Amino acid sequence: MKSNLIITISREFGSGGHEIGAKLAEKLSVPLYDKEIIDKAAEQTGLSAEYIAEHEQRYTSSLMFNLAMGNYSRTGELPLHDQIDIVQSEIIRNYAKEGSCVIVGRCADYVLEDDFECLNVFIYAPDEVKLERITERYSGDARTAAKLIKETNRMRSKHYNYFTGKIWGDRQNYDLMLNSGRLGIDGCVEMIIQAAEKVD
Amino acid sequence: MKSNLIITISREFGSGGHEIGAKLAEKLSVPLYDKEIIDKAAEQTGLSAEYIAEHEQRYTSSLMFNLAMGNYSRTGELPLHDQIDIVQSEIIRNYAKEGSCVIVGRCADYVLEDDFECLNVFIYAPDEVKLERITERYSGDARTAAKLIKETNRMRSKHYNYFTGKIWGDRQNYDLMLNSGRLGIDGCVEMIIQAAEKVD
Repeated sequence: MKSNLIITISREFGSGGHEIGAKLAEKLSVPLYDKEIIDKAAEQTGLSAEYIAEHEQRYTSSLMFNLAMGNYSRTGELPLHDQIDIVQSEIIRNYAKEGSCVIVGRCADYVLEDDFECLNVFIYAPDEVKLERITERYSGDARTAAKLIKETNRMRSKHYNYFTGKIWGDRQNYDLMLNSGRLGIDGCVEMIIQAAEKVD
Repeated sequence: MKSNLIITISREFGSGGHEIGAKLAEKLSVPLYDKEIIDKAAEQTGLSAEYIAEHEQRYTSSLMFNLAMGNYSRTGELPLHDQIDIVQSEIIRNYAKEGSCVIVGRCADYVLEDDFECLNVFIYAPDEVKLERITERYSGDARTAAKLIKETNRMRSKHYNYFTGKIWGDRQNYDLMLNSGRLGIDGCVEMIIQAAEKVD
């Protein structure tokens, strides 16, 4: 693999994207950044990680729209969720500067697109596979799991669209998109490693 | 690779999907079916291949909608484009029955989904890569190429949506989606071979 290649993983909630990222980072012996980014942002803003996790994905229209319309000019201060996005983006860029790593979520593909070489991956799975995985995590409560999957993926999509102005899951944003329900967690890890060898 | 695995390749026009399919079939020593399907359909219907190629993708609303509404009942005859779809589907199923093969386009993922084991692949590429490839094919006429790319992909999408009731390029229809502009033609071929080893 090229030195300084950053692998970004976007993923449907329930598709096993975090697990794939973790195994990938381990196999490649590079750092993994996921919830760690939230924690770091928490440190920098003085807010608790729980507070950020809850508030980071609340927004209206789009960041660019709000900035263009001067919607923030009266107070001169960005809403909290925008501040968090900006702090997290800075943290992601600093991680990327340190060299090869795996970054899960946080719109990292967009944050890094202009200044870093990335392999951008999207992991998805059929609904029944996501449901099975999340139901297991919630001790067999399929109803709660189904609700959580729907809501979390809706928020991920909304956040990505808001922050990047692009569409979450749109193939044009990624180098490869893998169905973990069909290829398996380890299968996806191996395919991403192979793809990382191929990008020019 | 499993015996009797059918690899279907859906592809954006200009992404090199046909070339990937051809190289893949050669490497796996299995038959490739692409334009051949049109020719076979032509033989069976007594229509010329040119006529079919021109008419196969003209339609309104959706096939299921038209059938459900009884829109065809007065004459008892399906419009030509629906007849062609049905003949081609039968040909695809007959190819699949013969064993492993690579089928490019023709909604093969949908035609075979209930009765055959398939690895469903979607090949795409950034606009500039598609434009470069097609411009080259048309002796440097970028304007004609751009128009052709837009129109062909619009028709592929429309035909897929009409015939299958699903959305062309929607990740839920595929096992893996590869950006040939980033991974290269040979890179895609190798990744599909690897994926074919992994499906359970």
